[in-house]
Amino acid sequence: MKLRCTLDFLLYDWLDAQALNQRERFADHSRETFDAVLDTCERIAREKYAPFNRTVDTEEPRFDGEKVILPKATHEAHAAFAASGMLSAAQDYEIGGMQLPYTVQAAANSFFAMASVSIGSGMLTSGNANLLMVHGTPMQQEVFAKNEFSGRWSGTMCLSEPQAGSSLSDVATRAVPDGDDFQNDPLGPRYRLTGNKMWISAGDHELTENIVHIVLAKIPDADGRLIPGTRGISLFIVPKRMVNTQGELTGERNDVALAGLNHKLGWRGTTNTLLNFGEGKYPVGGKAGAVGYLVGEPGKGLHCMFHMMNEARIGVGTAATMLGMAGYYASLDYAKNRPQGRPVGVGGKDASQPQIRIIEHADVKRMLLAQKSYCEGALALELYCARLVDEQKTGEAQAVDDARLLLEVLTPIAKSWPSEWCLEANSLAIQIHGGYGYTRDFPVEQYWRDNRLNMIHEGTHGIQATDLLGRKVLMENGRGLQLLAGRINATIERAIQVPALAVHANALGQALQQVGAATKAAWATGNPADALANAVPYMQAFGHTVLAWIWLDVVLATQRTGAAESAAFRAGKLGAMTYFYRYELPKIGAWLKVVETRDLTCAELPEEAF
Amino acid sequence: MKLRCTLDFLLYDWLDAQALNQRERFADHSRETFDAVLDTCERIAREKYAPFNRTVDTEEPRFDGEKVILPKATHEAHAAFAASGMLSAAQDYEIGGMQLPYTVQAAANSFFAMASVSIGSGMLTSGNANLLMVHGTPMQQEVFAKNEFSGRWSGTMCLSEPQAGSSLSDVATRAVPDGDDFQNDPLGPRYRLTGNKMWISAGDHELTENIVHIVLAKIPDADGRLIPGTRGISLFIVPKRMVNTQGELTGERNDVALAGLNHKLGWRGTTNTLLNFGEGKYPVGGKAGAVGYLVGEPGKGLHCMFHMMNEARIGVGTAATMLGMAGYYASLDYAKNRPQGRPVGVGGKDASQPQIRIIEHADVKRMLLAQKSYCEGALALELYCARLVDEQKTGEAQAVDDARLLLEVLTPIAKSWPSEWCLEANSLAIQIHGGYGYTRDFPVEQYWRDNRLNMIHEGTHGIQATDLLGRKVLMENGRGLQLLAGRINATIERAIQVPALAVHANALGQALQQVGAATKAAWATGNPADALANAVPYMQAFGHTVLAWIWLDVVLATQRTGAAESAAFRAGKLGAMTYFYRYELPKIGAWLKVVETRDLTCAELPEEAF
Repeated sequence: MKLRCTLDFLLYDWLDAQALNQRERFADHSRETFDAVLDTCERIAREKYAPFNRTVDTEEPRFDGEKVILPKATHEAHAAFAASGMLSAAQDYEIGGMQLPYTVQAAANSFFAMASVSIGSGMLTSGNANLLMVHGTPMQQEVFAKNEFSGRWSGTMCLSEPQAGSSLSDVATRAVPDGDDFQNDPLGPRYRLTGNKMWISAGDHELTENIVHIVLAKIPDADGRLIPGTRGISLFIVPKRMVNTQGELTGERNDVALAGLNHKLGWRGTTNTLLNFGEGKYPVGGKAGAVGYLVGEPGKGLHCMFHMMNEARIGVGTAATMLGMAGYYASLDYAKNRPQGRPVGVGGKDASQPQIRIIEHADVKRMLLAQKSYCEGALALELYCARLVDEQKTGEAQAVDDARLLLEVLTPIAKSWPSEWCLEANSLAIQIHGGYGYTRDFPVEQYWRDNRLNMIHEGTHGIQATDLLGRKVLMENGRGLQLLAGRINATIERAIQVPALAVHANALGQALQQVGAATKAAWATGNPADALANAVPYMQAFGHTVLAWIWLDVVLATQRTGAAESAAFRAGKLGAMTYFYRYELPKIGAWLKVVETRDLTCAELPEEAF
Repeated sequence: MKLRCTLDFLLYDWLDAQALNQRERFADHSRETFDAVLDTCERIAREKYAPFNRTVDTEEPRFDGEKVILPKATHEAHAAFAASGMLSAAQDYEIGGMQLPYTVQAAANSFFAMASVSIGSGMLTSGNANLLMVHGTPMQQEVFAKNEFSGRWSGTMCLSEPQAGSSLSDVATRAVPDGDDFQNDPLGPRYRLTGNKMWISAGDHELTENIVHIVLAKIPDADGRLIPGTRGISLFIVPKRMVNTQGELTGERNDVALAGLNHKLGWRGTTNTLLNFGEGKYPVGGKAGAVGYLVGEPGKGLHCMFHMMNEARIGVGTAATMLGMAGYYASLDYAKNRPQGRPVGVGGKDASQPQIRIIEHADVKRMLLAQKSYCEGALALELYCARLVDEQKTGEAQAVDDARLLLEVLTPIAKSWPSEWCLEANSLAIQIHGGYGYTRDFPVEQYWRDNRLNMIHEGTHGIQATDLLGRKVLMENGRGLQLLAGRINATIERAIQVPALAVHANALGQALQQVGAATKAAWATGNPADALANAVPYMQAFGHTVLAWIWLDVVLATQRTGAAESAAFRAGKLGAMTYFYRYELPKIGAWLKVVETRDLTCAELPEEAF
């Protein structure tokens, strides 16, 4: 209810999502159809996800020697989600999609992430199928993508290996042509894969009839050697069970074996696996080696994969955001109902008076407002990025290019910022609950555990930071950064004319200048080792500046729309924005100081001194 | 090993602990006896605690309807700890103690906190018995305290109630005289207690023959009313099983019933209970009501209890610190052994080169050095406070008073700072492990879960902050703060003469001035509501300033002792201190800004705007 109110405001009053309907692709849509999608997702999340969030935490996936067992609730939630059509919501009508804007899809998905982040595994299936719709052959799309969109099969992404977590250039899974006629398989050039893949989410389960693994592997050269680096990486479809061109199971198992389930701190509703490809446990046609069908050109695998990276990272950012939001709402509810203590006053505390509710304590309000500013700000950022995805797909030429570049720069923030600050929000939600928050009788400890994953998967914090400072702010002569600065300055120009906002507009202008100066100073020696030693503090400051901009822009929209929202709603947004400018934005000074001075205190400390 | 090296340095080279042996109470001690205590505790922690830290996490306490079941390992660890004599280490020889300085005891306890924080429940038993040694009658000391010191019985502290967590003035447990001769019981004036106590650690178990609860309750006035506020609180000994004056069990159960075990996020090796006193489940002499023996004067209960507050809070701070340290060592070890990625260089990454170990990446080094600076700094602070406890107990008159006042001001920091920043250290330890850190195959996720308790129990973060800004920095006309400033300035004066440290000495001087100015500004209106709205940011800035001081002082000691430690050891301390001054201390500006301006953004936001 509360979430829906904020989503409606962000979508319609801030991002003007209904304007997308004037574009050809979305011409059949209207605010009514968008609202219907949101209604449906809100209902499914409420009925099929939220009540079982603790269940999937306590009934962890287990392997009975043959199958991976998940709670009944997960099967039912998956079925309801698939039946809603959300897996192919963004796809063309002709393959059964809704041609829904990604902005609306992202907003709709936020309900599932808030209700039970680890039940909701649709993101990988959609992403997998979306990739095939771009890079696969028509047959691959027909057989694999369509069955994923329908929910009959599910998908994975197999990148990491035990010896090469974040370092994809060290991928050692080998793919060799399967027989002389390997080029002639109607499902795509046929290879046999051998190798181990680690951290594969939804890598094994019985939720669907089949699982479509998309696997990074290298094709050896004539001497049997793997090309070092990421250039040698190709992409393969490796189904768990063999299929024919009709999309029917042949009855034969492919040579993909579950080697282990990872037992995690949180996010336990989703299986996470170590998979062995081609170890010979399930020989195909009497021969060891997992059968894989090449997708796209050999050696272009990473390029194909990066195609879906922005959406995946926005997905992770949204998950982090909604876990934060879940904790915010839970602690707000608790604070409104829990009586304890008395007001602080000049005359001290009068114990003969009745206790007040803890929301009346200033420090509890501080912890609530911090959560609100982190989570609602992050949600706005994620939707802003989703809106850029739509622009990139359906805008005019210049807008497409601008959106692409802006997304390059903003994606590391959209992924990293909520994973850090909405985790902090979850910690504050625990704190507000006091001892109760530390028990498993209240939901907030689980949110905190679940959220801790988000700084790790889909590119760690360190990798996002290196991507931002090492690549994104430099690319195309810094044009992405300039574009972003242009957007920020446009907001500043509007805000500076509003007396109540002028002081914040000035603060944002200063912050932007500081970030720009730090970017230059970091690279002043041209040595990546100097610049990137403090890439994470840089990203933290950059992120806080972006969020300050988003908040100012959001508050401008509350002023613009005037009568649409209640006075309390507007006061809330204004309060959260004010909090962010007074309590958060001033933190960037400390982070940027080490960037500007190219501080090497950490980098130069010898190993034996630790 | 690594910890011992740091402890030895802090105890002997920095705090000059061996000088305590010149005092009468400690005259029999020497560095050799201190070392023997450290050796013993290190060994017991290594053999009986560390191997079972995961066991006590997975085999959570459970109630079989009659008894609370704990793992065998917990029984064995408890027995070994009791046999070591550490429960009464600080007590007089005549009652079986060692007359060990608290400084050395605190250092020795750090081994247990690092090995398995939730097995080690000796702190409550010692604290309970120590309180009786000060406020109990000789008979109470003989019967209860001595049996606790020997480890035959254990102790609890029963403060909180379900309706009054942190708000002790709302304690509703009633204690009424038990018969006309209630004054004549040799164990103390005998009352019958009725009420519920929540969050009672070690509240029920079979580790010991009996459990000695120390319970806060109110004696009703002639009209049966409880006096509002904390003035009406008295203190009672309520044994789980009834005992006679010989310290023998009478065979009768006292009317204390386990009403529930709390199922926690972490710290699972310790039972945490809801206890019902006097509900009639175990009537004594055929009558409902838990038998309790008054300790000290009626209505002075809180005064007696506060007696042990400083040590308990230093204990919590030390626990938080050592959990942080455990994560630091685990992630350091992982980083030294895990190969992944390649060095950042001007020419880019050359994938044909072998992978490097992750400790060679600057961002991993940053996360390690942050942990080192948080945890080693916090350990130094805890030992500094422990040294003040010894000073307060055995120093000359002026030194005693100074130590008392300094402890008043420093204790909120000693409790809160590690609970916040060593938790952050644990998060960094997870991050260094990547995906592995998120699994339960590595220890770091448990440290992080265990550590989350420390901002909550023994006075929440908010309560510590209110105590600091609302009471401690004001008391006795601010003399505590002035004393602390004097100590800090003394360090600055020494450091400023060392060329390599002068810049840090100046930064510390500035920080101290900022804290002083913020303290004044916070109270400029004289209105607690203005000042305390930002008590937590104030405490964060105050804490960072204290830690900066501690670090500078520690590094001065490495310079003083010169040859005693290795060059790598000194470089490590210097590196951690430098990290703290460059990356951490600059954060105080943002925190103090809202204090100085008495920012009421949070406090004034109306409830409906959240």
